[in-house]
Amino acid sequence: MGSSRNLTLYVDFFSQPSRAVIIFCRVNEIEADVHLVSLRKKESRQPPFLAINPLGQVPAIDDGGFTLSESHTIMRYLAATRKVADHWYPEDLEKRACVDRVLDWHLGNLRRGVAPYVVHRELAPLLGRTKNPTLAAEAEACLKQSLMTMETVWLKDSPFFAGGSQPSIADISSACELQQLKLLDKEESGALLAPYEKVKAWMVAVEEFTAPYFVEVHGELEKLAKILQDRRKSEAEGEVETAPKL
Amino acid sequence: MGSSRNLTLYVDFFSQPSRAVIIFCRVNEIEADVHLVSLRKKESRQPPFLAINPLGQVPAIDDGGFTLSESHTIMRYLAATRKVADHWYPEDLEKRACVDRVLDWHLGNLRRGVAPYVVHRELAPLLGRTKNPTLAAEAEACLKQSLMTMETVWLKDSPFFAGGSQPSIADISSACELQQLKLLDKEESGALLAPYEKVKAWMVAVEEFTAPYFVEVHGELEKLAKILQDRRKSEAEGEVETAPKL
Repeated sequence: MGSSRNLTLYVDFFSQPSRAVIIFCRVNEIEADVHLVSLRKKESRQPPFLAINPLGQVPAIDDGGFTLSESHTIMRYLAATRKVADHWYPEDLEKRACVDRVLDWHLGNLRRGVAPYVVHRELAPLLGRTKNPTLAAEAEACLKQSLMTMETVWLKDSPFFAGGSQPSIADISSACELQQLKLLDKEESGALLAPYEKVKAWMVAVEEFTAPYFVEVHGELEKLAKILQDRRKSEAEGEVETAPKL
Repeated sequence: MGSSRNLTLYVDFFSQPSRAVIIFCRVNEIEADVHLVSLRKKESRQPPFLAINPLGQVPAIDDGGFTLSESHTIMRYLAATRKVADHWYPEDLEKRACVDRVLDWHLGNLRRGVAPYVVHRELAPLLGRTKNPTLAAEAEACLKQSLMTMETVWLKDSPFFAGGSQPSIADISSACELQQLKLLDKEESGALLAPYEKVKAWMVAVEEFTAPYFVEVHGELEKLAKILQDRRKSEAEGEVETAPKL
């Protein structure tokens, strides 16, 4: 289905669900204006954006006056209202349910692991918060369980999630989530992912299938990852560093 | 749409997403065999059930050989394959997106508040775990933020979530989640909900719309809530009590 509506995406490139929606739009040639909402400047909590999404979270969209949030919901909606290849969100009810299942699992498991783990291992000071080891440990257990589920269930018999030979929106979403681990120390993220050969091959496959957009959209994250890695190196060498600029 | 397939629900009545699926089936007269999987006896982690759901979680379904898990996914799938009134999961793409949005919000917010809060304020010893005040405090903040969102966003202009004058699967799911607070001390759960008049009215409306099933399906939870409340009273009076039987 085509649409003549004007679509605006409200995103921050440091938000993993924002990146998923942008990649989904670019790979499917869905025309959209991209409006940056800086999480660092707390723009998502200010009235102009709250009129778009009263929850104060990115991503959100405005599709000809119809506003919507939650990245999985946005991708489901765009798959239904734009011309999008079937494998991203299949019409077949069983295949669709297999994608929905992974999307829901992601929110209750992978997100609950990755997001607080990265915050409480690394980002907290940049966000004006304090690292909390209890919350980091809880998140780590959830992250490791999620990686094990990816390796032994979702990717057991197929190169992409939900049993497909081509990716779905669930693959884009989870791959963007895992990329957040790039903000950790390289040795730490390497050790976390080391046991999961299928997960690592799947990350490459998602990046290749969505080329060049996956890499492009992660450019800002890669820059921050490099700044953080350089700072860790300086700190290890005993140099005094100011907090990096997000 | 009808279906001649044999449907089996795998559930535990102490699991809030299990209860949501059962209520949804009963209120829509969806024929199903109900197979109990005891979380207390760890049956969800044993091979017979892992063949149905390798994630080891309830609810799950077997629909004529097609197995599926994640309560929101199951309700979406059943709404599409059975004869179900449109308001539960609307065909209209914008209305459907509004329901999906709340379902996704629930997993990332309300569930992340209620479930760990109840565990770390009350249930942990029954589950062989230790109450953790840091995790309870984190969950409490998330729960209160979620209640505020329900009061000021989802229920701002309508008696049910997602803008409807009739409930959707998102209402059933969130109402079952909130019922979990019945396991807390009555004063504590009363104080938590006190500021949220619309939420309290909505709980009654969901219960009435799905009568008599909402109350029936919560029978086991109510029994446990009473046992726990009696135990608290005995403990306050200095009597020695053994752990209650789940």
